[in-house]
Amino acid sequence: MAFPLSELNHLTDLACQAADAAARETLPLFRTAGLVADNKLAGAFDPVTAADKAAEAAIRKVVLAARPDDSIVGEEDANIDGSSGVVWVIDPIDGTRGFISGTPTWGTLIAVGDAQGPRIGIVDQPYIGERFIGTPNGAVLRRGGADQPISVRDVRNFEDATIFTTFPEVGRDQDRAGFVRVADECKMVRYGMDCYAYALLAAGQIDLVIEAGLAPYDVQGPIALVQAAGGVATNWSGGSAAQGGQIICAATPQLHAKALKLLEPYADG
Amino acid sequence: MAFPLSELNHLTDLACQAADAAARETLPLFRTAGLVADNKLAGAFDPVTAADKAAEAAIRKVVLAARPDDSIVGEEDANIDGSSGVVWVIDPIDGTRGFISGTPTWGTLIAVGDAQGPRIGIVDQPYIGERFIGTPNGAVLRRGGADQPISVRDVRNFEDATIFTTFPEVGRDQDRAGFVRVADECKMVRYGMDCYAYALLAAGQIDLVIEAGLAPYDVQGPIALVQAAGGVATNWSGGSAAQGGQIICAATPQLHAKALKLLEPYADG
Repeated sequence: MAFPLSELNHLTDLACQAADAAARETLPLFRTAGLVADNKLAGAFDPVTAADKAAEAAIRKVVLAARPDDSIVGEEDANIDGSSGVVWVIDPIDGTRGFISGTPTWGTLIAVGDAQGPRIGIVDQPYIGERFIGTPNGAVLRRGGADQPISVRDVRNFEDATIFTTFPEVGRDQDRAGFVRVADECKMVRYGMDCYAYALLAAGQIDLVIEAGLAPYDVQGPIALVQAAGGVATNWSGGSAAQGGQIICAATPQLHAKALKLLEPYADG
Repeated sequence: MAFPLSELNHLTDLACQAADAAARETLPLFRTAGLVADNKLAGAFDPVTAADKAAEAAIRKVVLAARPDDSIVGEEDANIDGSSGVVWVIDPIDGTRGFISGTPTWGTLIAVGDAQGPRIGIVDQPYIGERFIGTPNGAVLRRGGADQPISVRDVRNFEDATIFTTFPEVGRDQDRAGFVRVADECKMVRYGMDCYAYALLAAGQIDLVIEAGLAPYDVQGPIALVQAAGGVATNWSGGSAAQGGQIICAATPQLHAKALKLLEPYADG
């Protein structure tokens, strides 16, 4: 079954309700490590694991209450195979190392799509109070109750491009080599922004995100957001990014093509 | 003249008024690059330079109106040599590459002290709405109108420590080698947080920040904040950090001593 475009507003609203429910679980546990009164207790308690599990359960509850026949793919719990053709792909806390170290660069990722891939993508950063929402109708940044339209910027050449990655912290040697090959051509390189980097690309602030070793739940929300904002998202071979692995997102098709050419020797099979 | 501790509340309030004035200049220009309607005009306009200059002018105006005899050291304009013995050291936008790429990791840094160094330190991140304030009376995170006391956490060993730096992007080979020597011992390494890393250390979220090539205005606000929160801030030789250069901040004296021993071969003069 194809994605029900007639239900786009309903599905987007439901995804936002799910993100709200996740934030009610994540925010009380963010930065608790340094803030709890009794540090002896804190040693036995892993706030990110607790927040991850509670937030995914909260998202599933919201989705299944409204749409019991949808499929769900998540990081923390077993997949649910529904009959509706609509697939939810969720990561309650992407960027756990950011969460652990207090940086508001982690996000709750929610994608809604079908077997072909995501059509709605949300990157939610509740501590800052930013929700980046992409749909086939475009992309917005929702903050303080207002929606601001966002889109990628028109950067086509490496010499004008800012590139982000979570490298050098993750990835195989082959992945790092591919990233460095492109990064060396770019005007500016920055690290450590977790999923927030994809939101910055969608908002026209940066031009390339190149990562590897990603799972579908790491990437489906971000790629739907980037595509909704006018950007390009593929794997390093130019195929669908929906299954994760080696991912490249670019502001323009021209920049994407140039980067893909350099990544080709480092692309998996 | 020694720092007038009797005027601590007055000076802290004035520093906060100066940070408010800076935010009125920086925030309207943050993320304009990707958001202005006319991209042709945007090409001729450098938002970070405009924001930097306007914010420093705004800070100076607030300070000099209330305290015309104080000294001011800033990044953008000439130093002012006052007669009061009170010295303001200001950086209107620390982390300009973060500002340019849309990451809310830049900050407005304000230090108030005397010839011996800073006694009050503010790291202000107005987009997130966080103001980290350190004084001889302790440190707080001010957010949404409420002050939450913050302090460093009790991490004494590398195996429990999270280390942050703006490296690998800045610094000489010698500086990078020193950073890597310590980072290789730590549990977790993260990059790219600009001055926000010092705020996270003061808030008990991370344990080490090691950087180099810093100016006094880059570091005086952050080190006063870290010290107010119970942490240790020196240069790589264990001396005063107030003049910048190679800087290490640590959550505890024990962790500081261990890191300093490893940094010694890489320390300047």
